Amino acid sequence: MGIREHISTDDAENTITEEENMAVWLLGIKTLRIQPYSLPPLGPYDVKIQIKAVGICGSDIHHFKNMRVANFVVKRPMVLGHECAGIVEQVGSQVKSLMIGDRVALEPGISCRQCYLCKDGRYNLCRQMKFFGSPPTNGALANQVVHPADLCFKLPDNVSLEEGAMCEPLSVGVHACCRAKDVEDEVGQICNAMGGPVDMSFDCVGFNKTLSMALQATHAGGKVCLVGLGQSEMTLPLSSAAAREVDVIGIFRYRNTWPLCIELLRTGKIDVKPLITHRYRFTQEGVEEAFETSSRGGNAIKVMFKL
Amino acid sequence: MGIREHISTDDAENTITEEENMAVWLLGIKTLRIQPYSLPPLGPYDVKIQIKAVGICGSDIHHFKNMRVANFVVKRPMVLGHECAGIVEQVGSQVKSLMIGDRVALEPGISCRQCYLCKDGRYNLCRQMKFFGSPPTNGALANQVVHPADLCFKLPDNVSLEEGAMCEPLSVGVHACCRAKDVEDEVGQICNAMGGPVDMSFDCVGFNKTLSMALQATHAGGKVCLVGLGQSEMTLPLSSAAAREVDVIGIFRYRNTWPLCIELLRTGKIDVKPLITHRYRFTQEGVEEAFETSSRGGNAIKVMFKL
Amino acid sequence: MGIREHISTDDAENTITEEENMAVWLLGIKTLRIQPYSLPPLGPYDVKIQIKAVGICGSDIHHFKNMRVANFVVKRPMVLGHECAGIVEQVGSQVKSLMIGDRVALEPGISCRQCYLCKDGRYNLCRQMKFFGSPPTNGALANQVVHPADLCFKLPDNVSLEEGAMCEPLSVGVHACCRAKDVEDEVGQICNAMGGPVDMSFDCVGFNKTLSMALQATHAGGKVCLVGLGQSEMTLPLSSAAAREVDVIGIFRYRNTWPLCIELLRTGKIDVKPLITHRYRFTQEGVEEAFETSSRGGNAIKVMFKL
Amino acid sequence: MGIREHISTDDAENTITEEENMAVWLLGIKTLRIQPYSLPPLGPYDVKIQIKAVGICGSDIHHFKNMRVANFVVKRPMVLGHECAGIVEQVGSQVKSLMIGDRVALEPGISCRQCYLCKDGRYNLCRQMKFFGSPPTNGALANQVVHPADLCFKLPDNVSLEEGAMCEPLSVGVHACCRAKDVEDEVGQICNAMGGPVDMSFDCVGFNKTLSMALQATHAGGKVCLVGLGQSEMTLPLSSAAAREVDVIGIFRYRNTWPLCIELLRTGKIDVKPLITHRYRFTQEGVEEAFETSSRGGNAIKVMFKL
Repeated sequence: MGIREHISTDDAENTITEEENMAVWLLGIKTLRIQPYSLPPLGPYDVKIQIKAVGICGSDIHHFKNMRVANFVVKRPMVLGHECAGIVEQVGSQVKSLMIGDRVALEPGISCRQCYLCKDGRYNLCRQMKFFGSPPTNGALANQVVHPADLCFKLPDNVSLEEGAMCEPLSVGVHACCRAKDVEDEVGQICNAMGGPVDMSFDCVGFNKTLSMALQATHAGGKVCLVGLGQSEMTLPLSSAAAREVDVIGIFRYRNTWPLCIELLRTGKIDVKPLITHRYRFTQEGVEEAFETSSRGGNAIKVMFKL
Repeated sequence: MGIREHISTDDAENTITEEENMAVWLLGIKTLRIQPYSLPPLGPYDVKIQIKAVGICGSDIHHFKNMRVANFVVKRPMVLGHECAGIVEQVGSQVKSLMIGDRVALEPGISCRQCYLCKDGRYNLCRQMKFFGSPPTNGALANQVVHPADLCFKLPDNVSLEEGAMCEPLSVGVHACCRAKDVEDEVGQICNAMGGPVDMSFDCVGFNKTLSMALQATHAGGKVCLVGLGQSEMTLPLSSAAAREVDVIGIFRYRNTWPLCIELLRTGKIDVKPLITHRYRFTQEGVEEAFETSSRGGNAIKVMFKL
Repeated sequence: MGIREHISTDDAENTITEEENMAVWLLGIKTLRIQPYSLPPLGPYDVKIQIKAVGICGSDIHHFKNMRVANFVVKRPMVLGHECAGIVEQVGSQVKSLMIGDRVALEPGISCRQCYLCKDGRYNLCRQMKFFGSPPTNGALANQVVHPADLCFKLPDNVSLEEGAMCEPLSVGVHACCRAKDVEDEVGQICNAMGGPVDMSFDCVGFNKTLSMALQATHAGGKVCLVGLGQSEMTLPLSSAAAREVDVIGIFRYRNTWPLCIELLRTGKIDVKPLITHRYRFTQEGVEEAFETSSRGGNAIKVMFKL
Repeated sequence: MGIREHISTDDAENTITEEENMAVWLLGIKTLRIQPYSLPPLGPYDVKIQIKAVGICGSDIHHFKNMRVANFVVKRPMVLGHECAGIVEQVGSQVKSLMIGDRVALEPGISCRQCYLCKDGRYNLCRQMKFFGSPPTNGALANQVVHPADLCFKLPDNVSLEEGAMCEPLSVGVHACCRAKDVEDEVGQICNAMGGPVDMSFDCVGFNKTLSMALQATHAGGKVCLVGLGQSEMTLPLSSAAAREVDVIGIFRYRNTWPLCIELLRTGKIDVKPLITHRYRFTQEGVEEAFETSSRGGNAIKVMFKL
């Protein structure tokens, strides 16, 4: 089965006009509709992006199925999508870093830039964060979005827009690795390299069983990064880990990771293309099929929209 | 009630002679006996210390009551005690840092100095550690011990031998503070100072309830130090803490802390004297009473032997 | 000589009216004039501050004498002053942290909040920084200024407005200490405390001679913080220092220091009051005398305006 | 010219016998002699190594030409050589990590393991360091040496003994990279990757001109590692670098690097084989030619002895 089969060809009705920006709205449980989406005015430091690629994430599926993720509840219609890339269509008066026509990957969260966490460089923890497709902030599964220019990262010629959209899931891993590195980098690096005793473990699932295993498998002075948050309460042998100074490092999203991700893609150190298993067009039918495919799981890894 | 009342005066039979080094041996549950203790030969980098003050620690009481602490089981008679200070009586041929007559506090653990953890400066995690009064290593509740010179720290004139013995429990707290500081020292310091949102919490008990409370009370980007290890398995809301990048930092004993502890005592920044609530002489009767007092708890905080 | 003698009493002509905000303008070498200063409109995240205390800094004196500091040249009339505190007079529509009447200390630099250095928490290195009284940005020696609310830090009741203005010079030292602490905090702290061999030196002058001395006096593995920048080229025994892994740490202004400074003042851990040796009123005569006094040096340490 | 031509075939007279361990002694300026070398007794934690490959380093050449390197003066005959690998011939009674026949790379410095720097994991700065071929400690250009087992690192099957000897020069670079990484790893990594503004520069020469260039070329918040120490006094634009918080990081040898170096060789991430341009046998003639070749420079990079 060719991946391209999913893309129907009769989508002429979806031609974008400047008056009519369309987006995928979540209206209720398993109810998606392509409807008009009015953009905010372009600020002096903003750019308008014509979205070209959007991936579906596990949290999109959670919203689709349950209208919530953890404590974040969808209370009114919301545009989905936060893994995206596109082309710069308009630039604000003060923007110097980007030009019309630039191909960019979008970092989806806008922090307040004023609280102590933002000013300390840990903006991913900002409590005023506005994050694409996390209620009540609209997402990026749309023809166009307006976004701060400093959160739009230019792609090299040999990195596709689809790969650009993959910077978002890639960032989670990169940030976890960055946090795992913090104080005792040198030894960790050395001993890890040797299969030696200082370990960094990454629990990307976050269940009782996986985290217990990670704590026990990590040697004295090591770190366990808790990336996946599958279970809200866990019963753990924490004191024996603590007695070996094995630290549990919490991970929330990412910060300052786009440049590195783009570089990893540009140089081919990481190849995300095989992870994109399904592609759909931006039509009502395409949207419904895409979310169904992604919900089912099965052989689908990353389901991507082409706009 | 005067503290000194605990000290009986008729202990003439315990006079030390050079031939006869006596120590408190744990022979069985709640069975202590002052018996001769032969010292190892003095190596070129060792000193022989005449012990003058020894505190009783919670782990001594655990050994006294149960013949074990966690997985460390007392399988044959063992000398107790690891919080100690004394006077240098003899110095090895290569020792340059100490002289006969110097008053010193003893760091109780001898690490292998060869494994990767020792060579990385994290010797407290050494798996070959020989630690006073932790089976199968004999302790320091004795007239004399032989110890590496670099683990004997000279006391300033205004720091008593009893205070010197208190460096050991003090070190646990100092090391936890040092670990709590790792990467994000600056902000932590600043915001803590302001009663602001980045917190470091110290759970010195280590139960379900206390650690859950600590995780919830610590703000985004903060750290919880797990110092006390009361419960081996804990059920915890770990994922919500991880989503705020609250890290759990394990603490095991201490490393490189004696100089700072001694300085804190010398300058009076910390006063440990009020914590010494009971003092006993080094006689069979004194030993039994001291362990009874310490076991009972009650108004006893630190029970100290004077030798 | 009483300090208050400097303050003339006949300054009725300086009564502030809402129409007429006055400021000290630097018009040419040693030429200062109190003239009207129009404020920018109040943005949603800004506050308007009635300035109450302004200190004179060495850089103000440099500007006064030479119309420049290093590469920063005063090319058109500019308001001086950046060590300041005052009272909130008006708050922007989105400001939640401050209320009218709050007494605040002002952090004088507004960074771009968008570049990689800002987003990494090192905003003091931002190349788009707008800094009070550093050309071409106007300063705060005025009746009123408009400033972002997140750069105005509320003072506790027992910290005076003059002390609030002292947060700025105090911040330089605090930031240097924070940087000096980076990686090897623990040992540095311990050994420093003991008069031991790992040192942190602070060269607050920045000449050949002082930095050479600092490099030599600092022991293996230590750090020299270069705070003062007296000489632009220096001839140094850098390789012998490098061979002992003595690092030279550059310091530029400060970041995230106001909360800690205010806390140091509130708790009395640092007393800056004795450093304020001269006080002047905000009149043409007062301004001229104040800059003369500060330029002369002599017994003047910190010269302060009361508005 | 084939590399192997350097190796003469008539060296039967150099057959090792157990009674007669031979070594290359530096007797005076440009005066080398192969003479007997008595080894110290094998301690319980030592191994005896049959040396198989020894590289010539710049400091060996300095000793050869000047009988000194910096302040280290050769005052009496000394065995040269510190880049070496060999085969375990005998193991001390307490050695558990190695067996007879193991192929190992030797870390050449034995630190005191007792001073505060050793106990803090920064043993490369130990003032009591005994370092192969650095006066007054004899080196490893010999048939056999006795060395602590924890400083002998087992080589994987696909890493040759010559490559093992290259771990020493490789370690200098690895350690510099490790130090360059310390506090602000994450951003450095990211921005470096992007050709962006935070740089780490490595000055591997250490002259006025090179370090000035490095300081100027490194952007705000970056680091310059001073690896080469060519000039003892340097005239530098240090204050402009400091004002951008560009730090100068001193590098001395290495610590804890062997495992990582071996791993880099095993996995082929670094290929040192092309750097070995000349090979010589362990004969009086071979020794003289090898040192001449290495002294001349020219197309010689690494000159290696095969024993």
